[in-house]
Amino acid sequence: MSVSSFYPPQRTLMGPGPSDVHPKVLQALSRPVIGHLDPLFIGMMDEVRELLQYAFQTKNECTMAVSAPGSAGMEACFVNLVEPGDKVVVCINGVFGSRMAENVVRSGGQLVRVEDDWGQPVSPDKLEDALKAHPDAKMVAFVHAETSTGVLSDAQTLCSLAKQYDCLSIVDAVTSLGGVPLYVDDWGIDAIYSGTQKCLSCVPGISPVSFSDAAVAKIKSRKTPVQSWFLDQTLVMNYWSGNQKRSYHHTAPVNALYALHEALVQLQDEGLENAWQRHARQHQALRSGLEKLGISFIVDEGCRLPQLNAVAIPEGVDDAAVRSRLLNQYNLEIGAGLGAFAGKVWRIGLMGYAARDENTALCLRALEETLQ
Amino acid sequence: MSVSSFYPPQRTLMGPGPSDVHPKVLQALSRPVIGHLDPLFIGMMDEVRELLQYAFQTKNECTMAVSAPGSAGMEACFVNLVEPGDKVVVCINGVFGSRMAENVVRSGGQLVRVEDDWGQPVSPDKLEDALKAHPDAKMVAFVHAETSTGVLSDAQTLCSLAKQYDCLSIVDAVTSLGGVPLYVDDWGIDAIYSGTQKCLSCVPGISPVSFSDAAVAKIKSRKTPVQSWFLDQTLVMNYWSGNQKRSYHHTAPVNALYALHEALVQLQDEGLENAWQRHARQHQALRSGLEKLGISFIVDEGCRLPQLNAVAIPEGVDDAAVRSRLLNQYNLEIGAGLGAFAGKVWRIGLMGYAARDENTALCLRALEETLQ
Repeated sequence: MSVSSFYPPQRTLMGPGPSDVHPKVLQALSRPVIGHLDPLFIGMMDEVRELLQYAFQTKNECTMAVSAPGSAGMEACFVNLVEPGDKVVVCINGVFGSRMAENVVRSGGQLVRVEDDWGQPVSPDKLEDALKAHPDAKMVAFVHAETSTGVLSDAQTLCSLAKQYDCLSIVDAVTSLGGVPLYVDDWGIDAIYSGTQKCLSCVPGISPVSFSDAAVAKIKSRKTPVQSWFLDQTLVMNYWSGNQKRSYHHTAPVNALYALHEALVQLQDEGLENAWQRHARQHQALRSGLEKLGISFIVDEGCRLPQLNAVAIPEGVDDAAVRSRLLNQYNLEIGAGLGAFAGKVWRIGLMGYAARDENTALCLRALEETLQ
Repeated sequence: MSVSSFYPPQRTLMGPGPSDVHPKVLQALSRPVIGHLDPLFIGMMDEVRELLQYAFQTKNECTMAVSAPGSAGMEACFVNLVEPGDKVVVCINGVFGSRMAENVVRSGGQLVRVEDDWGQPVSPDKLEDALKAHPDAKMVAFVHAETSTGVLSDAQTLCSLAKQYDCLSIVDAVTSLGGVPLYVDDWGIDAIYSGTQKCLSCVPGISPVSFSDAAVAKIKSRKTPVQSWFLDQTLVMNYWSGNQKRSYHHTAPVNALYALHEALVQLQDEGLENAWQRHARQHQALRSGLEKLGISFIVDEGCRLPQLNAVAIPEGVDDAAVRSRLLNQYNLEIGAGLGAFAGKVWRIGLMGYAARDENTALCLRALEETLQ
């Protein structure tokens, strides 16, 4: 065996993530490693927290980056908040809602499922019915932007229902953060997790999370230890918190945090509202181009995600052949359908640094040529 | 608030990790992102698995990289192998043995502790006594190279005892992999985890793991689901395994895996035995220099780790002041003592790319000037 160095091609990433990474983020990624307890690194972590507070629009002290991908951020929320026997209402309208449900079960919680069809947003009415039927429910969980279907749900209404029925809310913002309006404090979100590889224009591998004071109080009053040592927020907080002596928990992924820091600096410099508008603008351009090609959206206009466009694969078109030609001829990646949508749907991402005129133009032209 | 880009200084990292990273690894880290299901990426993952098999000296099919730091690799071994009620003997001679014990408890296992003093290797006699006293034990866990104390334990003897008493073995090789001889198959290790930021000369954030056929059989015959969805090897294997259609589990940390691939290519090109010898050689040079400075090792010669030199802080020397001067004046990081050794011990790492003549020379000269 003799393996050589790996040189990836330059792709244009317009799938469901990872999406195109800002060149400055790639530069930051390869800066020299310093120790995870180096005072300069600790200072940088404080800035990451501040920048995440801005991105999440929150003042939550307990805001940080989990040292693993979004799936681990999801698990961090559930294993910390759910104690054995806790009843949790999970709204499911795609793959990631189902994954939340799986997390409730594995955390020992009692699962109440509220289901909507794939391609539909979470129904506040159904959630309210479930909350009426289960007055002992302690938490409500849902996905803000379903990556499997391209649907945006009304997080503000769902969280206010949760509050009304004395429940904490757990929100999946993996695909929404940085791409569409999201106000953690104003909407009363109690626990939220995201990923770096979507609208933050960063490499995959890290999961920003934030917990409200009420969520932290629930974690601190647990009667049983958190089942995961790695994700135990009562331990991790001692490393991330600026209020006390840092204590070693695990070795932070130093360079990945350089990258996240730079991605968040770029977001700050652009401004959140401008980033949201850029995603909306590119979505409109893509949409009008796709419609000219006779390609239609599978999601109603009112709840379409600008950053993840789920469209029907035209009748008679070979899904795999088209995606493969886009990849091999144009170095362009678009996403396949997931689960029930496999073979029926393409998911075209316009996330973060991928939401630019040149990407939209390339995608439309390459699709046109390929479908001819 | 306005945060600027972060530019870390160029440090020489001679603590307990992260250690110096090979420049080619940093270059690989910032190559263009491609999709985690891109055929070219899948091909690279296959190479990572092959290269890890070489590094671990194993033919285990179930060899892969956990998408999170070594602590998560540890947790992956315990949550997958330990079912509620399983009795696990954990040998503890430092911080990381204690962390293993914590993992057994959180996985619902019955913990049997075998303790040795900090600075001592794990005693095979004590382990055998415990195995005789607990004939129903199902697993034995220990740390090959204790990062908190700089001690090497005799993994071959400990694993053969485990086998003799019908137990699976779980081995922490975070600091040993690439730095000292380690033969997973020959020694009969059933589950092993490591980290990228020690002797592999790679950035922190990923954890190589490997499971024997017997370990995989135990995982597949579980009566209860693995409590962690993120670390559930029965799911992760479907993404890493080359024998079937890849199924999406979580988004792989693409760039971190580029870096690991390159680090393993470097190890392959140097040759494992040569890497072990390089660590041994630098250790001898550091040792003779330290002895001239009147600094003595706290670990007996027969079980010292070449890659992590735990030495007594000389009488009357201000621990924090010395480390701070080394860091600020020489850009040199050495490690503080952990737990019971805080304030009493320095840990000088010679790990991976840090095990070079120039590092040893800098460290000895800077210590000499600082202690004058």
